Amino acid sequence: HTHTHTRPINGVTFPLPMTMPEQELLKPSEWSYCDYFWADRKDPQGGACIPGFEVLLQKQLKGKQMQKEMAEFIRERIKIEEEYAKNLSKLSQSPLAAQEEGTLGDAWAQLKKSLADEAEVHLKFSSKLQCEVEKPLLTFRGDNFKKDMKKYDHHIADLRKQLLTRYAAVEKARKALADRQKDLEVKTQQLEIKLSNKTEEDIKKARRKSTQAGDDLMRCVDLYNQNQSKWFEEMVTTSLELERLEVERVEMIQQHLRQYTTLRHETDMFNQSTLEPVDQLLQSVDPAKDRELWVQEHKTGEFRPVDLDI
Amino acid sequence: HTHTHTRPINGVTFPLPMTMPEQELLKPSEWSYCDYFWADRKDPQGGACIPGFEVLLQKQLKGKQMQKEMAEFIRERIKIEEEYAKNLSKLSQSPLAAQEEGTLGDAWAQLKKSLADEAEVHLKFSSKLQCEVEKPLLTFRGDNFKKDMKKYDHHIADLRKQLLTRYAAVEKARKALADRQKDLEVKTQQLEIKLSNKTEEDIKKARRKSTQAGDDLMRCVDLYNQNQSKWFEEMVTTSLELERLEVERVEMIQQHLRQYTTLRHETDMFNQSTLEPVDQLLQSVDPAKDRELWVQEHKTGEFRPVDLDI
Repeated sequence: HTHTHTRPINGVTFPLPMTMPEQELLKPSEWSYCDYFWADRKDPQGGACIPGFEVLLQKQLKGKQMQKEMAEFIRERIKIEEEYAKNLSKLSQSPLAAQEEGTLGDAWAQLKKSLADEAEVHLKFSSKLQCEVEKPLLTFRGDNFKKDMKKYDHHIADLRKQLLTRYAAVEKARKALADRQKDLEVKTQQLEIKLSNKTEEDIKKARRKSTQAGDDLMRCVDLYNQNQSKWFEEMVTTSLELERLEVERVEMIQQHLRQYTTLRHETDMFNQSTLEPVDQLLQSVDPAKDRELWVQEHKTGEFRPVDLDI
Repeated sequence: HTHTHTRPINGVTFPLPMTMPEQELLKPSEWSYCDYFWADRKDPQGGACIPGFEVLLQKQLKGKQMQKEMAEFIRERIKIEEEYAKNLSKLSQSPLAAQEEGTLGDAWAQLKKSLADEAEVHLKFSSKLQCEVEKPLLTFRGDNFKKDMKKYDHHIADLRKQLLTRYAAVEKARKALADRQKDLEVKTQQLEIKLSNKTEEDIKKARRKSTQAGDDLMRCVDLYNQNQSKWFEEMVTTSLELERLEVERVEMIQQHLRQYTTLRHETDMFNQSTLEPVDQLLQSVDPAKDRELWVQEHKTGEFRPVDLDI
C-alpha cells in the first residue's frame, strides 16, 4: 500500500495530520460552515454516525421551528392584548358613578372614557403585532423550505453513497492488483526453477493481467477522486447557501423583534396621551363651580323666612 | 288681620315679594347652600312637598354613593390589571423558542423576560391602586356619615314640626282673639241700647278677656318666631356644614383620581424601561457572532478531504 498520507473514514479520505502541512481554512476569520463540517459526528450512544452536513441541516430545521414558535408566542401576546382591551373597553362602558355631577363629573366621565382610549391603543398594538410581527414570522419561508432542505439532503447523501461505492471499488481493485502481483511473483519463481515455454507464456500473461489490474486500480481511484471532488464542491456550495439562509433568518427575526419593541414603545406613548384630557379635567375640578351648577339646578327658593307679625 | 307683609307656606313665614325690599343674600357671590334652600320643593307628581333641607341631604347621600361606585370602578380596574399581569407572567414562562441560540437567543430570552417585567409593573400599579385609590375612596366617611345625616335630618325636621304646631297655636289664638273682639263688640252694642249694671259688668269682663286673648296671640306669635329663628339658625349652620362636607368630598375624590393618573403615568414610564434591555440585546444581535458560537459548539471536523492516492 502506497497511500500512507491519507486515512479513509467512512468513505471520505482525510489527510493524516502527522504527514500533512496544516490546512489553511477556506474562509479564515469567518467561522464559515464550509470549513467545519467535513467529518461525521459520532453518536454519543455509539450507534450511527451523522454526517457533518446533517448537523447543518438540523440547524436549519430547528431555526425554522424557532421562528414558528416565536410567531406562536407573539400570537399569545396578541390574545392577551385583545383580552385586556376587551376588559378595559367593557369597564369603560360601566354606569358606575355616572351620576356624578359638575366639573368632578366631567373629570370622572373622562377618566372612564380614557379606559376606552387605552383599549383602543392596545387593540391597535395587537393588530399591528399581527400584521407586522406574527404574520411575517409565520410566513417567512413557507413549506418550500423543508422541501428544499430535503433536496439538499438527498443530493449530498447520494454523492456520499456513491463515494462509498467508489471506495469499495478502489478496495476491490487494490485487492485484485495484489492478487495479480502475487500470481506474477509465483510464476516468476517457477520460471527460475524449471525453464519451459509454457511458463514463459504464463509469465507474459500474468504480467499483462497485473498491468491491467494496475490500470484498473488507477481508474477506480480516479473515479473515486472525481466523486469526492464533486461531493466536496457541493458541500462547500450548499453549506455557504445554508449559511446565507441562516444569516437571512437571524436578520429577519431581529428586524421583526425590533418592530415588536417599536410597537410596544408606541403603545406606551399613545397610552400616555389617553390620560392628558383626564389630567386637564382633574386640574379644572372646582368644588365652588360644582356647587354653583348644582345649586342653580336644584335650589328650592332663596327668600328667607321673616318673623311673623300680628 | 294685620300680617299682610307675610305669607305662611307650610308653617314657614315668607315675606311677600311685593311689599318687601329685596333680600341681600347671606353669602353673596358664593352660591352657598344657606341661601337657596328655604322653600320646599313641590313634588312633580303633585304629592308631598320635600323640604329644601332634604334636597341638600339627598345630595350628600348621593355623593357618598358616587364615591362608593368610584371605588368599585377602581376595584374592577385592579382586577383587569391583575388578570393582565397574570397572563403576561404566564406567557413569559412559556418554553416557546427557548432553544434559540447565540445573540438572537439572548435577545429572545430578554424579550420573554420583559413580559415578566411588564407583569411586575402592572401588579405594582394594581397594588398601589388598591392602597392609594380604592381603599381611601371606600373608607372615606364610614357608616357614621349616614348616621350623622340622619341626626341632622331629625333635628331639622323636629324643629320644622314644632314650627307647624306653633303656627297652629298662632292661628288658634288669632281665632280666639277675633271671637273675643266680636263678643266685646256685641256687648258694647247691647250697652248702647239698654243701660244696665249687668251689661257694664259684661263689657268689662269681655274687654278683659279680649285683652287676654290679645296677649295670648302675642305670646303665641312670639313663641312661633322664636321657633322659626331657631330653625333658621340650624338651617344656616347645618347647610354650611353640608357645604363644607361636599367641598371636602370633591377635593378628596379629585386628589385620589389625580393619584390614579399619576400611577398610570408611572406605569407607562416603568413599562418603557422593561424594553430597554430588549432593545440593547436586539442591537447586539449578530449573525456572524452567532455562527461562531454555534460552529464552535457543533463543528464535526475542519480537516478537509484530500485526493486518495494509490
